[in-house]
Amino acid sequence: MFARRTLHQAVKANNAFRATAAVQKQLMPSRIIAQRLYSAATATPAPLDASKIQINPSKNLKPLQENSKLVFGKTFSDNMLIVEWEAGKGWGTPQISEYGKIHLEPSAVVFHYSFECFEGMKAYKDKQGRIRLFRPDMNMKRFSRSAQRIALPGFEQEELIKCIEQLLKVDERWIPNERGYSLYLRPTMIGTQESLGVGASNKAMIFVIASPVGPYFPTGFAAVNLLATTERVRAWPGGTGDAKVGGNYAPCIKPQLDANKQGFQQNLWLFGEDHQVTEVGTMNCFMFWTNEQGEKELVTPELDGQILPGVTRDSILTLARQWGEFKVTERRFTMHDVAKASKEGRIHEMFGAGTACIVCPIKNINYDGQDLKIPLDPSDTTSQAGPLTKRLNNAILDIQYGEVEGPAGWSVLVK
Amino acid sequence: MFARRTLHQAVKANNAFRATAAVQKQLMPSRIIAQRLYSAATATPAPLDASKIQINPSKNLKPLQENSKLVFGKTFSDNMLIVEWEAGKGWGTPQISEYGKIHLEPSAVVFHYSFECFEGMKAYKDKQGRIRLFRPDMNMKRFSRSAQRIALPGFEQEELIKCIEQLLKVDERWIPNERGYSLYLRPTMIGTQESLGVGASNKAMIFVIASPVGPYFPTGFAAVNLLATTERVRAWPGGTGDAKVGGNYAPCIKPQLDANKQGFQQNLWLFGEDHQVTEVGTMNCFMFWTNEQGEKELVTPELDGQILPGVTRDSILTLARQWGEFKVTERRFTMHDVAKASKEGRIHEMFGAGTACIVCPIKNINYDGQDLKIPLDPSDTTSQAGPLTKRLNNAILDIQYGEVEGPAGWSVLVK
Repeated sequence: MFARRTLHQAVKANNAFRATAAVQKQLMPSRIIAQRLYSAATATPAPLDASKIQINPSKNLKPLQENSKLVFGKTFSDNMLIVEWEAGKGWGTPQISEYGKIHLEPSAVVFHYSFECFEGMKAYKDKQGRIRLFRPDMNMKRFSRSAQRIALPGFEQEELIKCIEQLLKVDERWIPNERGYSLYLRPTMIGTQESLGVGASNKAMIFVIASPVGPYFPTGFAAVNLLATTERVRAWPGGTGDAKVGGNYAPCIKPQLDANKQGFQQNLWLFGEDHQVTEVGTMNCFMFWTNEQGEKELVTPELDGQILPGVTRDSILTLARQWGEFKVTERRFTMHDVAKASKEGRIHEMFGAGTACIVCPIKNINYDGQDLKIPLDPSDTTSQAGPLTKRLNNAILDIQYGEVEGPAGWSVLVK
Repeated sequence: MFARRTLHQAVKANNAFRATAAVQKQLMPSRIIAQRLYSAATATPAPLDASKIQINPSKNLKPLQENSKLVFGKTFSDNMLIVEWEAGKGWGTPQISEYGKIHLEPSAVVFHYSFECFEGMKAYKDKQGRIRLFRPDMNMKRFSRSAQRIALPGFEQEELIKCIEQLLKVDERWIPNERGYSLYLRPTMIGTQESLGVGASNKAMIFVIASPVGPYFPTGFAAVNLLATTERVRAWPGGTGDAKVGGNYAPCIKPQLDANKQGFQQNLWLFGEDHQVTEVGTMNCFMFWTNEQGEKELVTPELDGQILPGVTRDSILTLARQWGEFKVTERRFTMHDVAKASKEGRIHEMFGAGTACIVCPIKNINYDGQDLKIPLDPSDTTSQAGPLTKRLNNAILDIQYGEVEGPAGWSVLVK
């Protein structure tokens, strides 16, 4: 009983990988397994602690890029943040130092079994020159949840925000001070165990890198032409569609290239025999329409485990509900609904939503060989985005740049 | 028309990532895109060429491990093989040099979007001291197919085998010369583009590392107790279940730990509302039973796109068909079939199959809260494996170690 209980504790205390190894090998009596695990299980693993941070900024300051020449994710700031984790010991000292290569054994499990998850978030400069983050608590919550979905460690979310704020202060000159421009942050966690056994990684690393970025649509919106994809699926029940794990991305590139070849910019990912609409490329999907009951409604797929819980998605839903001008609904809808509404002229706008673009207007969906034209702005034929799409984009930008006070906790000043 | 055609050529010539970037940005007229791509598209990218190999063996020879102390995937040989690829240029010079760390920018796409796939294969020493590989063509074919599923480059499969043979000669002292022991080889391909844009990687690297391993069951077979898992799903139609990509693995660890916690060694992965049997842990699944028609039959799930086309799986099917003693079938079967057959005493044996273990006997499946006992050897109650399981294991070992001549091309002598 003692043995079973301490084994259980060890598993709970993030030593699952050891317990697993022992159980799998069946070589050791459970009493001995329990004894070996006891000290590790009773020692409290160290939390991620921002107050321990060590900052050794780079002395080789790189030249800044002109705002107009920025390409997403290509240029990186002078420094990066690294925090390492070890099973039993917990989180080590957060380190800010020069941006540079990561050195890993070729046996590191991140290369083999996809122990990797990430976040995308941005830091902004407001008109007063202050640094702002947008809903970083949402990103940290999802990051921790993504990590645990693939048996990587959780962490103290507030503490990681504090560490990221330190990085922003050190690399402040990299945050553009023009509306629409920002410093994209990429917190990433990887499993670094140096052994090929398929099990939980006994080592992990968080790194955060920062890349100055311009607006996704530098010369005004460009609406996208989508290929509704049925041959490949992005996510499924019991999978990882609701976690921001690396494994969700690489399998979607081949279908994307196939769509590009046919002249479409992105895939519209469908699911199920009824062809439910799920996501657009790497974005959440929204439709503004007059529904079957004749109500104006903004609809997006519900978080059923297959949909990424986007921060922009949640922000759009919250704002639209505050406005109270039309129905706002999270539920399943199908390509049958879209095609019928398109035929009957009931679709007003459709758009993707994500951190990179905020909103990305959709102008056409090719479904089953047929083009379904999606309206843009009926009052301005030169516009590549509908009125609601533009209004949401501006409302979110206003809050991100601190020009309008948003809901509590949305725009966080870095002090 | 010219522009469209050259753009198309560029896409075909593995410059898809550039074409995509240009198309997505919609910033450049297609004539200019086409011109920029023209030279790259008309140059033939270099093939992977083993004759160009450069060998600079390590001078720091590590001490060999005692066979009895080998742990799977923990100890690595003195050297490794690396070949790098770049879009437009093709494959570079294969290099064999000291086993050591890989240095990558933190922006390398392998860390973010899971551009990674791998193989598991083994090199054996026969009684004459010669080095043998087992069906390496099968591994290379799958490796190339896995890579292309995630938009990584294909390669000349025969040439990579030649490079691996060179590595085996350099590291020959690491190949154990005892039956059951071997040098496990882990060819891995990763995407190394240093930019966060979600698209095909413009750089890639193959590395091959080698780890001496002992028999999976050092003290005789140990049959496993499985938890039939319905809450989590390993693969889905339109997904990557038939490719050996990293993204298939990390999401299965949490369910595995949950199973371990309840006292089970592995998950039995099910699919669909009818609970089709798919795989066991990271192995293919076989059932030897008397079917509903009263025929003795060895059955394994068919390759429907969700099942990994295992080399051991194929070898078992081929041998059993050669023997011609019972029906051998690739088709779907469900937990209903298993439960009914178990109740009626029609199951003779069940086992997993894979490179690491060859065969892994199953003694119990917990399904829907009920234990279904699976028979082992009725003529020997101390045995942890059934007669067919043991026979297949020996037949494959005999061929791998060159003691029995197998089908043409199975046991390949490294000269």
